[in-house]
Amino acid sequence: MSNRTPPVTLQAFLRDAATRVETRIQETLEQPVPNAEKLFEAMRYAALGPGKRLRPALVYACAKAFHGGDFDPAKCDVTAAALECIHAYSLVHDDLPAMDDDDLRRGRPTCHIAFDEATAILAGDALQTQAFELLLADNTEPALKLQLLQELTAASGSRGMVAGQAIDLDSVNKTLTLEQLEPMHRLKTGALICASARMGALLGGADSVQLQTITHYAQAIGLAFQVQDDILDITADTEVLGKNQGADALLNKPTYVSLLGVNGAREKLQGLHKQALDALATLPGDTSLLQALADYIVQRSH
Amino acid sequence: MSNRTPPVTLQAFLRDAATRVETRIQETLEQPVPNAEKLFEAMRYAALGPGKRLRPALVYACAKAFHGGDFDPAKCDVTAAALECIHAYSLVHDDLPAMDDDDLRRGRPTCHIAFDEATAILAGDALQTQAFELLLADNTEPALKLQLLQELTAASGSRGMVAGQAIDLDSVNKTLTLEQLEPMHRLKTGALICASARMGALLGGADSVQLQTITHYAQAIGLAFQVQDDILDITADTEVLGKNQGADALLNKPTYVSLLGVNGAREKLQGLHKQALDALATLPGDTSLLQALADYIVQRSH
Repeated sequence: MSNRTPPVTLQAFLRDAATRVETRIQETLEQPVPNAEKLFEAMRYAALGPGKRLRPALVYACAKAFHGGDFDPAKCDVTAAALECIHAYSLVHDDLPAMDDDDLRRGRPTCHIAFDEATAILAGDALQTQAFELLLADNTEPALKLQLLQELTAASGSRGMVAGQAIDLDSVNKTLTLEQLEPMHRLKTGALICASARMGALLGGADSVQLQTITHYAQAIGLAFQVQDDILDITADTEVLGKNQGADALLNKPTYVSLLGVNGAREKLQGLHKQALDALATLPGDTSLLQALADYIVQRSH
Repeated sequence: MSNRTPPVTLQAFLRDAATRVETRIQETLEQPVPNAEKLFEAMRYAALGPGKRLRPALVYACAKAFHGGDFDPAKCDVTAAALECIHAYSLVHDDLPAMDDDDLRRGRPTCHIAFDEATAILAGDALQTQAFELLLADNTEPALKLQLLQELTAASGSRGMVAGQAIDLDSVNKTLTLEQLEPMHRLKTGALICASARMGALLGGADSVQLQTITHYAQAIGLAFQVQDDILDITADTEVLGKNQGADALLNKPTYVSLLGVNGAREKLQGLHKQALDALATLPGDTSLLQALADYIVQRSH
């Protein structure tokens, strides 16, 4: 339990990444369209509420690892903000009554509770578009910009995140095997986490072999994140978790814990952690932040 | 009434545009992700159901007008498909119970009735991403591709279509003036219609002055489309209309008819028609298709 708090250097890095990305999103959502103030307020509520900003952190950490010491984090701000907008949109829509019907997220009422269902649907829709607008408006050179856009659309659309959510919804009250659960999570949360690492790596100038390695790292920590989520869903308090404890179990959704038991899930988590570190070991440069991120993901308490 | 059917040349053109865009969308949505077949079926249902394909038609017609005789429509297929995906996503979400709560669209059950609400939300989400994926995967040269993406995101996001829908939802049971109704429609439906014309013009090689002129044309027909919608909502049968007659009046939404009366709305429609034709008159090249489209929009019966 003493390992739960990330080391200070990682904490400082996470705080800095969060501040950078929040500032960028805040700027984007200033000056709402007249008479659409509520829409913009809901977008800000969803994208700027408390959160780990894991995807932005991955962008900065990967870019830094590949680029080296003189790396300017400002080059990553827009990519990080775009990923957080996609993530925020997916949470707003996932929480809707017709989907997971959650009323609590990150310790606060979910968007459709704080506003209303129609506004939450529209805020999610607009946050998705905002992600692509952000990337388009950035002053990245065109070929890299198009690559980043391709990574983001592929990870978030009908062959990525949304497919994962569709499969997840369909799995309620079904008996899934481990072999069926894993592809769902690889799409639902893994795809965007992979895209975050890959987009960061692209910004840092990674070559195609390095891009493949960082994908293995990100796939492992993406799945580890989900396994730890399932463990926390059973073992942590609602207060610590910031969402309703046991929510997935209540929905009768298959989880790593329901399939493997808590101890089996913890073993799985350690295996994924090792996979992530093994991938990093083959990379040149300073990957200490990426190692610390992997440690944090398997040790986090919420 | 005898004017209601578009002239044969326009009919053939509209049919060809519809076939082209439907083929392109069909190709994109083939081979669903395993276990996400329902999501893909809902996406196809929403994007390939009966429809006027007005936005695709505008793309082809504008590109042809600016490019001239030897124009290859294949160059427009992806842009047309992307616009139709955005349009389809907006209809699926607008029809949801928390939004306009419509159960009939284009003569068929709406997406959330034919499938379920969660699937409809996800299909809409994925159709939005699909639009950007389509444009990204096209073999347009990078600078033009980025311009097209910028047009589409700006028209569809929180400063375009979604803002319009947010203002529209907020206007239920409110007394709006004509000066408040118009900006809402310019965003809700006008922005995407303008983008269709502008993206077609860009594909046809229009210069910046011509782009401005085609914007004026598109703004006029976009608003005319809405005015005619309001007139038809009051005067046409549900059967002809393909959606519930009087639906907007029932929701107590302000319309051009409620503000101007049927005759006043018809006068407004004629004024917008003239504005559209006046804009075309200043353009070089063969704008006969664009004229016929403007005629069709003010004369259509559904």
